[in-house]
Amino acid sequence: MRLLRVGDPGSEVPVVLDEYGRARDLRPVTAGIGGDFLADDGVRRVRDALDGLPALDITGMRVGAPVSRPGALVCIGLNYSDHAAETGARPPAEPVVFMKATNTVVGPDDTVLIPRTSTTTDYEVELAVVLGATARYLDSPDDAAAVIAGYAISNDVSERDFQLERGGQWTKGKSCETFNPLGPWLVTADEVGDPQSLGLRLSVNGEPRQDGNTKNMLFGVHHVIWYLSQFMVLEPGDVVNTGTPAGVGLGVNDFGYLREGDVVELGIDRLGGQRQRIGQA
Amino acid sequence: MRLLRVGDPGSEVPVVLDEYGRARDLRPVTAGIGGDFLADDGVRRVRDALDGLPALDITGMRVGAPVSRPGALVCIGLNYSDHAAETGARPPAEPVVFMKATNTVVGPDDTVLIPRTSTTTDYEVELAVVLGATARYLDSPDDAAAVIAGYAISNDVSERDFQLERGGQWTKGKSCETFNPLGPWLVTADEVGDPQSLGLRLSVNGEPRQDGNTKNMLFGVHHVIWYLSQFMVLEPGDVVNTGTPAGVGLGVNDFGYLREGDVVELGIDRLGGQRQRIGQA
Repeated sequence: MRLLRVGDPGSEVPVVLDEYGRARDLRPVTAGIGGDFLADDGVRRVRDALDGLPALDITGMRVGAPVSRPGALVCIGLNYSDHAAETGARPPAEPVVFMKATNTVVGPDDTVLIPRTSTTTDYEVELAVVLGATARYLDSPDDAAAVIAGYAISNDVSERDFQLERGGQWTKGKSCETFNPLGPWLVTADEVGDPQSLGLRLSVNGEPRQDGNTKNMLFGVHHVIWYLSQFMVLEPGDVVNTGTPAGVGLGVNDFGYLREGDVVELGIDRLGGQRQRIGQA
Repeated sequence: MRLLRVGDPGSEVPVVLDEYGRARDLRPVTAGIGGDFLADDGVRRVRDALDGLPALDITGMRVGAPVSRPGALVCIGLNYSDHAAETGARPPAEPVVFMKATNTVVGPDDTVLIPRTSTTTDYEVELAVVLGATARYLDSPDDAAAVIAGYAISNDVSERDFQLERGGQWTKGKSCETFNPLGPWLVTADEVGDPQSLGLRLSVNGEPRQDGNTKNMLFGVHHVIWYLSQFMVLEPGDVVNTGTPAGVGLGVNDFGYLREGDVVELGIDRLGGQRQRIGQA
């Protein structure tokens, strides 16, 4: 199943797309698609109720982030060997972890704002994992599947000077307003299948920039969730961005950074696509 | 005024201490002390209602964090010259910013758990700023006072190996379960007065370890809030830890790290005190 939220910011209503892609109103089951819903066996409840849910015409409606405000937005850095290489970094011996402010989450097609004074705003297509249960000291990566509700697309927008040249910790270049388009859908784990065989791609103004596959992650999804659970408690509704493949503006490429008016399009197999216009804060 | 929450975890009720230190039940005014309450002119509403609020006997009751779950928990690193020196770091040219998972916030006297496999769990007494309004691209540090609701004590508990030896970003050693005791009170800004003249102290098993003063911050509270607002949007209820003075276990001291059974006591002028027993996860 694919779960989503449509409507104006702050007034989104929950929707499920059935196997034929038809939208059905989820409000008879839940008011939102967040941690409480996911923890309360929400995915199963939607499945049980699906056939009886009323159809909903969502044509032309704005799509919000499927999870509006995660409790944590955790990111893995340098998790594809080709991306590590292009930035001049050595592949890490264990996952590099950083956090973004959770109020960076916006809808998949919302405008992304270049921060004031920024000249190095960059994009990163990433597979996002959405937690469906608490993860605390998991015994092994094999236990990770049981705490994953599903997957979505993240654009882990990054200001490179803020991230790397302004005092040492990456979060400064990762937490700017509008810096994490998420969605369009939360696709349940059963429908995604193997999370390590998904193509990812991103273009700017129609020019291809990133074209990778999750099979090239240094640390796979289940390893990452197990690993994080040794250092923090992940909760239902939390979102983990699992890193980006090669092709970003930073590093050896000659792509240049994002400018006002640019259009960024990104997609991941089975997870749909995003399209953002770049604006100015 | 001093605002607090008392009761079992998850069931705390809001309380205000009047000028004589008497506890009054805040439930006629609000169910909680979070971002929504603070944004909705909560401090003024408490003040207006104060004389009519019923007395409440809180003797022996557990005290929770005054703000249970901030939207963001942002920290400033190396913000006292003596602490920067003891860790071997050069004083930063601009604020070092990192984030902690917000589910690290616990009550001021709750047990702090040493993470499994940890041998270097450390303490940090810090002045915490609680936001009362949105801060986005403030024009100058002079605008910061208007967005600050008040202050509290944070113990920014830190696992030094996780923070520094496990892959590059500090958040890995800052986000462990129970790693941010907060409180006992949210003291309103008017009652605190000048935030740059507060003594801070911390002891372990009765032995003094930290004894500093906020006058020695490299970047003062108003500067920090203005600075952060250039990189992210701070929201009502968000908490900013403003750094710790010298005397932590890390670095040149011969204090050793925390062990199960230790008792950590910390305090800041006008903000009360905390006392944590150290346990094992």
